[in-house]
Amino acid sequence: MTNTNSRRQFFAGAAASVAGLAVARSALAGLPEPVIQTSVETAPPLIPTTGRPYNPVVTLNGWTLPWRMNNGVKEFHLVAEPVVREVSPGFKVNMWGYNGQSPGPTIEVVEGDRVRIFVTNKLPEHTTIHWHGQRLPSGMDGVGGLNQRAIPVGKTYVYEFEARRPGTFMYHPHADEMVQMAMGMMGMWVTHPKAKHPHISEVDRDFCFLLNAFDVEPGSKTPKINTMTDFNIWCWNSRVFPAIDTLNVRLNDRVRIRVGNLTMTNHPIHLHGHEFLVTGTDGGPTPPSTRWYEVTTDVAVGQMRQIELIADEEGDWAMHCHKSHHTMNAMGHDVPTMIGVDHRGLVKKIQKVAPDYMLMGERGMADMGEMQMPIPDNTAPMMTGTGQFGPLEMGGMFTVFKVRKDQKPGDYKDPGPYKFPEGTVAYEWNGALPPTPRPAASSDTTPATAQAIKPTAKGMSH
Amino acid sequence: MTNTNSRRQFFAGAAASVAGLAVARSALAGLPEPVIQTSVETAPPLIPTTGRPYNPVVTLNGWTLPWRMNNGVKEFHLVAEPVVREVSPGFKVNMWGYNGQSPGPTIEVVEGDRVRIFVTNKLPEHTTIHWHGQRLPSGMDGVGGLNQRAIPVGKTYVYEFEARRPGTFMYHPHADEMVQMAMGMMGMWVTHPKAKHPHISEVDRDFCFLLNAFDVEPGSKTPKINTMTDFNIWCWNSRVFPAIDTLNVRLNDRVRIRVGNLTMTNHPIHLHGHEFLVTGTDGGPTPPSTRWYEVTTDVAVGQMRQIELIADEEGDWAMHCHKSHHTMNAMGHDVPTMIGVDHRGLVKKIQKVAPDYMLMGERGMADMGEMQMPIPDNTAPMMTGTGQFGPLEMGGMFTVFKVRKDQKPGDYKDPGPYKFPEGTVAYEWNGALPPTPRPAASSDTTPATAQAIKPTAKGMSH
Amino acid sequence: MTNTNSRRQFFAGAAASVAGLAVARSALAGLPEPVIQTSVETAPPLIPTTGRPYNPVVTLNGWTLPWRMNNGVKEFHLVAEPVVREVSPGFKVNMWGYNGQSPGPTIEVVEGDRVRIFVTNKLPEHTTIHWHGQRLPSGMDGVGGLNQRAIPVGKTYVYEFEARRPGTFMYHPHADEMVQMAMGMMGMWVTHPKAKHPHISEVDRDFCFLLNAFDVEPGSKTPKINTMTDFNIWCWNSRVFPAIDTLNVRLNDRVRIRVGNLTMTNHPIHLHGHEFLVTGTDGGPTPPSTRWYEVTTDVAVGQMRQIELIADEEGDWAMHCHKSHHTMNAMGHDVPTMIGVDHRGLVKKIQKVAPDYMLMGERGMADMGEMQMPIPDNTAPMMTGTGQFGPLEMGGMFTVFKVRKDQKPGDYKDPGPYKFPEGTVAYEWNGALPPTPRPAASSDTTPATAQAIKPTAKGMSH
Repeated sequence: MTNTNSRRQFFAGAAASVAGLAVARSALAGLPEPVIQTSVETAPPLIPTTGRPYNPVVTLNGWTLPWRMNNGVKEFHLVAEPVVREVSPGFKVNMWGYNGQSPGPTIEVVEGDRVRIFVTNKLPEHTTIHWHGQRLPSGMDGVGGLNQRAIPVGKTYVYEFEARRPGTFMYHPHADEMVQMAMGMMGMWVTHPKAKHPHISEVDRDFCFLLNAFDVEPGSKTPKINTMTDFNIWCWNSRVFPAIDTLNVRLNDRVRIRVGNLTMTNHPIHLHGHEFLVTGTDGGPTPPSTRWYEVTTDVAVGQMRQIELIADEEGDWAMHCHKSHHTMNAMGHDVPTMIGVDHRGLVKKIQKVAPDYMLMGERGMADMGEMQMPIPDNTAPMMTGTGQFGPLEMGGMFTVFKVRKDQKPGDYKDPGPYKFPEGTVAYEWNGALPPTPRPAASSDTTPATAQAIKPTAKGMSH
Repeated sequence: MTNTNSRRQFFAGAAASVAGLAVARSALAGLPEPVIQTSVETAPPLIPTTGRPYNPVVTLNGWTLPWRMNNGVKEFHLVAEPVVREVSPGFKVNMWGYNGQSPGPTIEVVEGDRVRIFVTNKLPEHTTIHWHGQRLPSGMDGVGGLNQRAIPVGKTYVYEFEARRPGTFMYHPHADEMVQMAMGMMGMWVTHPKAKHPHISEVDRDFCFLLNAFDVEPGSKTPKINTMTDFNIWCWNSRVFPAIDTLNVRLNDRVRIRVGNLTMTNHPIHLHGHEFLVTGTDGGPTPPSTRWYEVTTDVAVGQMRQIELIADEEGDWAMHCHKSHHTMNAMGHDVPTMIGVDHRGLVKKIQKVAPDYMLMGERGMADMGEMQMPIPDNTAPMMTGTGQFGPLEMGGMFTVFKVRKDQKPGDYKDPGPYKFPEGTVAYEWNGALPPTPRPAASSDTTPATAQAIKPTAKGMSH
Repeated sequence: MTNTNSRRQFFAGAAASVAGLAVARSALAGLPEPVIQTSVETAPPLIPTTGRPYNPVVTLNGWTLPWRMNNGVKEFHLVAEPVVREVSPGFKVNMWGYNGQSPGPTIEVVEGDRVRIFVTNKLPEHTTIHWHGQRLPSGMDGVGGLNQRAIPVGKTYVYEFEARRPGTFMYHPHADEMVQMAMGMMGMWVTHPKAKHPHISEVDRDFCFLLNAFDVEPGSKTPKINTMTDFNIWCWNSRVFPAIDTLNVRLNDRVRIRVGNLTMTNHPIHLHGHEFLVTGTDGGPTPPSTRWYEVTTDVAVGQMRQIELIADEEGDWAMHCHKSHHTMNAMGHDVPTMIGVDHRGLVKKIQKVAPDYMLMGERGMADMGEMQMPIPDNTAPMMTGTGQFGPLEMGGMFTVFKVRKDQKPGDYKDPGPYKFPEGTVAYEWNGALPPTPRPAASSDTTPATAQAIKPTAKGMSH
């Protein structure tokens, strides 16, 4: 990571008010200080203290970029640069990003704001930024060669325009585009409405993240840049389950989730236990007459889908891409079928000469979630994550939507595993008629030490 | 197939009333008898005789699971187990399924029903069932590790919840999910509305099926379980054309077709000769203000699309996935281009030493539909199905929607090939101006023995 | 190209009125003359002079098929035949098409027209035409074997039906379908409404094109016909950027763009700088209550999406498929990752013995847009097209939507590069606060000789 001392590390503490920053920086001459991010955790919302107020978003495993006010203009500074992103604990990938991370920070402004963005190019090749979905002058649209000269290595370019319509947008290079996006260069942009808008709800929680993908061979550290479709690291904001933070909300909250797709394929985003409406696209809010309920919305490439729901069912609810190979990590992508083949005798013989030898999948692959399979260095295990009832056998584009009665307003922290009310968990049949549910707390859950879903140490120690 | 004597074979006869069953079984102690299915034909609708009445669905090449009433609760018994599914005549695949087949039976209930499902695990590894799209307690949602302990081998677990909202849902494992779905574990669930619903039409015919896919190497019998995208057996309810039953309706019937996708890619479902509306998703019925006409609806992974139309054009209408390699069977997936290459001299020489040698495709591949190409054992021919005008050259996700004036209400049987009225079939130009159509019955159709579309014996005898 | 003297070459001149043709041909005995097209440029709209009047469409790098009136019937003649399509300058591909080109001509009629289409088969195998989306008699629907006998080699068949509903449709074979579409056989069909329709706008400009794809190995000339997903030539109307014509409109024009997809995957069509509505599908116009704004619409396989917008932002706006490997040409599909590897010493050594040796991508691939990389014969360069600010580094499914104040009504010609108003182009930061934009005309643009986007000669000379 090109984390030099001359740049301020933001969010070292928990507080996230931009007031002090804005004051401090507006006094500086020259460029706004390029705030960088060293943490991969979800930063608390950035409460605006300069400019118009709004209800800020929370970027999953990301953060919002502070700005400075300069004669009524909101000024941001993005630094395009090589970064190292921790995709999951122990699995670090050489990416290109902005301000220390991939994705770059979310830019949050208000409809009507005049915005000036300084973009410094610290990559080894030229770049640009295209402000996907924005209304702006043609010369600010960021297509290298067509709308501007590409930003040479080492130079800083200036983009300036008014945030004309409210909505959720994305930003990414439009120069050597396939390579630079394959390396992780992208970020989100939220423009809040300046007044009540008939098609934009006020919500209690507002989340955003990008769908992105990498092709990193197990054991290596740098993505392959010419992969067309066979990616093996399917991410939300450059993280994979169980390293993706959970979405934690209060019972009966109105929740908005903004999801943008900068991969090469559609991702059907599925939420358990609730129906939701698609209330906006990167083209604007959807009129109410157009809305229907879904449990899975297909987010196409280069699209943003904004979903909304009332979180009226308490519990731990899976939320994931429904393409099941997108909820596997890299090791799941090259395993032969052993179902129906009994190799037990053979395995024993092999183990005499190669004691680590294991056979995957002769009875399916469920063993994978539990066993200590050696994996190459610097690789995310393929099926992992342990919940209160055992392994989840998931990876990639998966997290948990946690709905709790006692989650405090404004508190985005993980409340831990759900305490299931007695008799509400699927249980083993014990021969009684009608069946007598046993309480979840006895045999179906692990004891008092039940943990939040988190990376297992298994398979990661090598 | 694990078809033991201790389990009753259902639907041996044509009648499909659950009354007797329900009475008989409610007197049994312990688990409901696990009804299994030995037939791959489309079962007639299961007319409910206990619980609330409704207009039942017809599952393409599938059936509906009988239940028993137990103190006001509808009890079902699903057995997860290895099965052998006949994907097309002569092509049998080792799958995992429920109650003797893949997909499992459709579960049909009424909004407000209290439902109890016993799930017995006869697989070689643990499993769960996730009730995709349902509103239910978090502990009944079926994600192994997160919502429950996975069902161990040999055990029976109990799920119980109220069918809270009407609609079309799916069920599938959420434990070793990619493997278990790649092996065929899935089924549909229909909850009928308990009263007239402003957004749910009463229809004359109501069909449902799942889109699923397998990767079975030509000549082998067990699917590869780690295939991400390169599947070669593209199915509707684990069947391929011409082994998929036709959808047979009466002229001017209002028809609903419920299609769920549990593959790894989108399937654009295309119906010829009619426009349709998407009237529901797995999130609920679509409000009328949201509906527009389509001839192709893109069903994303993990989505259900419910389409409705008035069948107001008599005839035989193709209905298929519009990705043309999904209407090819396995053999179509590895053929080189010979177009423009004249090998006739070469072929003759080779045939002197290898009389069976054939060259595919030097003039395209249309010959494939007619010729006797040797194919590996246990493989569906790649381009097949013969209609009244010759080979259809199709496979995979294709069937025919048959609209007939004289199809009786409630009769779902194949009426045979359409009798085209004279002068309504595309014909060879004979030089007259204006052209004089020849009647279809003379030279454009085969003689009186014209057959319904059915598997040809060609290429299957090896 | 099978361009014989017996067939008239149409559109040799610029005028595009069908009057003379219609008169001349209706006097002929027998078949209508099969008009062929030798040009790959966008033909001007074909103003109807027989039959009902309408506002004609413009087919990108295509043309509309003239007809003759015959006793109140519009008669067209399509010839299915091998063709050579210039996909980009210097890159010619052996395809199958209609009337000299792939795609075939657009057929344009009016709701209620009686239409008769003669189809002559000059391919080496049988074929049919399916009229995708049309309401018609079952025997005219074109599925070989099911609805008609396939058209034998050398024969002419007749299709006849009424154009019953207005909309945008497609036509393509339904016999040896995967092969014949992989070879380029397809075309569009527009049925204009006969009267004002509440859901169909009158527009100032009306464009149409098909999304299609080929698999042509670099250096070869004939597409592989059994490719399922790994295509490398992603086209709009069998052309790749920068050989796709630009869409040129007048400021504040209401513009309709009709896009059909006959590839094997979804294409998210993205327009910069404007929001648009989806106003129609191949199922019909969308009711206004269903419409929402998008900047990217996902066009599924076998679907047509009709988008509409007010072109109210002057400038040069990128328009492209958002899957970034679809905006690369063939050479982009097989390049290893060199990022982070410094080979400069190595390269020098290699160049001593192989002076042409170049290393791609150690600093990304942006160099590709500028350098003179040798490529195989008959191959489109992978990242190409030069705008007024340098290389665009694009290929495939990309073009430019040009909005100009002074584009005359009815003038579809390329107005050349946009003259950016001073101070509206992203610029290098020069240390001043507030920054002082330099005029675009000085250092950021090339001098007075700035060119329209067009194929570079680079990399094409071998």
